[in-house]
Amino acid sequence: MTHSDVSYRRMSVEQRRAQLIAAALELFAHAAPEDISLDDVAHSAEVSRPLVYRYFPGGKQQLYEAALRTAADDLEQCFAEPQTGPLTRRLSRALDRYLAFVDEHAAGFTALLQGGSVAETSRTNAIVDEVRRAAAEHILLHMEVRAPGPRLRMMVRMWITAVEAASLIWLDEDRQPPVRELRDWLVDNFVALLTATAASDPQTAEVARAALALETAEGPVGVLARRVVPVVSGAAHLL
Amino acid sequence: MTHSDVSYRRMSVEQRRAQLIAAALELFAHAAPEDISLDDVAHSAEVSRPLVYRYFPGGKQQLYEAALRTAADDLEQCFAEPQTGPLTRRLSRALDRYLAFVDEHAAGFTALLQGGSVAETSRTNAIVDEVRRAAAEHILLHMEVRAPGPRLRMMVRMWITAVEAASLIWLDEDRQPPVRELRDWLVDNFVALLTATAASDPQTAEVARAALALETAEGPVGVLARRVVPVVSGAAHLL
Repeated sequence: MTHSDVSYRRMSVEQRRAQLIAAALELFAHAAPEDISLDDVAHSAEVSRPLVYRYFPGGKQQLYEAALRTAADDLEQCFAEPQTGPLTRRLSRALDRYLAFVDEHAAGFTALLQGGSVAETSRTNAIVDEVRRAAAEHILLHMEVRAPGPRLRMMVRMWITAVEAASLIWLDEDRQPPVRELRDWLVDNFVALLTATAASDPQTAEVARAALALETAEGPVGVLARRVVPVVSGAAHLL
Repeated sequence: MTHSDVSYRRMSVEQRRAQLIAAALELFAHAAPEDISLDDVAHSAEVSRPLVYRYFPGGKQQLYEAALRTAADDLEQCFAEPQTGPLTRRLSRALDRYLAFVDEHAAGFTALLQGGSVAETSRTNAIVDEVRRAAAEHILLHMEVRAPGPRLRMMVRMWITAVEAASLIWLDEDRQPPVRELRDWLVDNFVALLTATAASDPQTAEVARAALALETAEGPVGVLARRVVPVVSGAAHLL
């Protein structure tokens, strides 16, 4: 009796499934889906190839989608955050978790979002879209808007896309700038987009005013405001 | 002798190729690549199916990639703009052309950027990336930065991604808001991201100051500045 048979008998179906998904996620984190074989997953989980097939009869594509499903659930949790305190503090915490996820799942995250992967299907795209939608809903919830209008929704979705783009560039540029700097800058960008959108959308203006009231001079918006002043101080001719 | 044979003999190889690509682009503009057949293209161009194969032996995928290549060249031209006047006026003109392109090629644009299309390959993704890179280079050129640092580059790429996301949402929401409103808002977002990035990046601060000096009170930045004031006026506690 081999070691793998022993551990097979000791694990429940759910445990075994979770173990295989964890092994797959670890591999997909460091290489593109096309470069990972079911043998790699079996070897990494210390089980036989037929055992992997018993749990995932659809082979690599099914295992990939199950792994993606698990990763998507984790990712959606990044945005769950108590609805108290300044909005930028909540966003910073969510971004810390999101960027830790990006860091941990680098190769899989890149393959998934850059498109053109052999493992990409309408199902995998639907999972990615679901994560984006969930993130947008979380953020709108934190803004305490009952019925967000199209402009506010579009602004939040644009910011989420911008965060994804920045994450891909960050991985591509050997994780520069340091993650805290990237996070602070993404929060600054959120504040900037919210303020610019407030200029032409009454609902966003109301949300922005309420959000600004909760911010502190020592917080990200205070720092941003004081740093923006010298940049715009020469532009009095515009007012 | 049929009509199509006559026109075949009268056209040069290059003319015929361009005619087939134009017919394909027109079809791809209104339906996803998976829903267009070579027969559709032949019928639309009033030629026989074998004739299409003579020009595109690789079939639909080759024709799709050639059409995409042509569209990408057109799209890159959107960002060519004389380097004079306020930056926001140049950006507005480029966005007018870009959004007209999006409007005209709606289905193809959506299929291409949403991913998961059967016609998507590493080659089609490379063409899309090339357009993004060209757009970023054009914008950096307008900022007159000799050696743009990573933060300024990242900001420009984030804005381009945000513009793409907004364009997809705009098409999805029956082209609402009106295209001029969308364009003005995207310009506002650019100004906002530039200003927020200037707060933490000296090079961007220099670029932002130079850009603001060229803006006028009647232009987009003047309007934006005057509209932002009442939104932030209650936030004096942050300074």
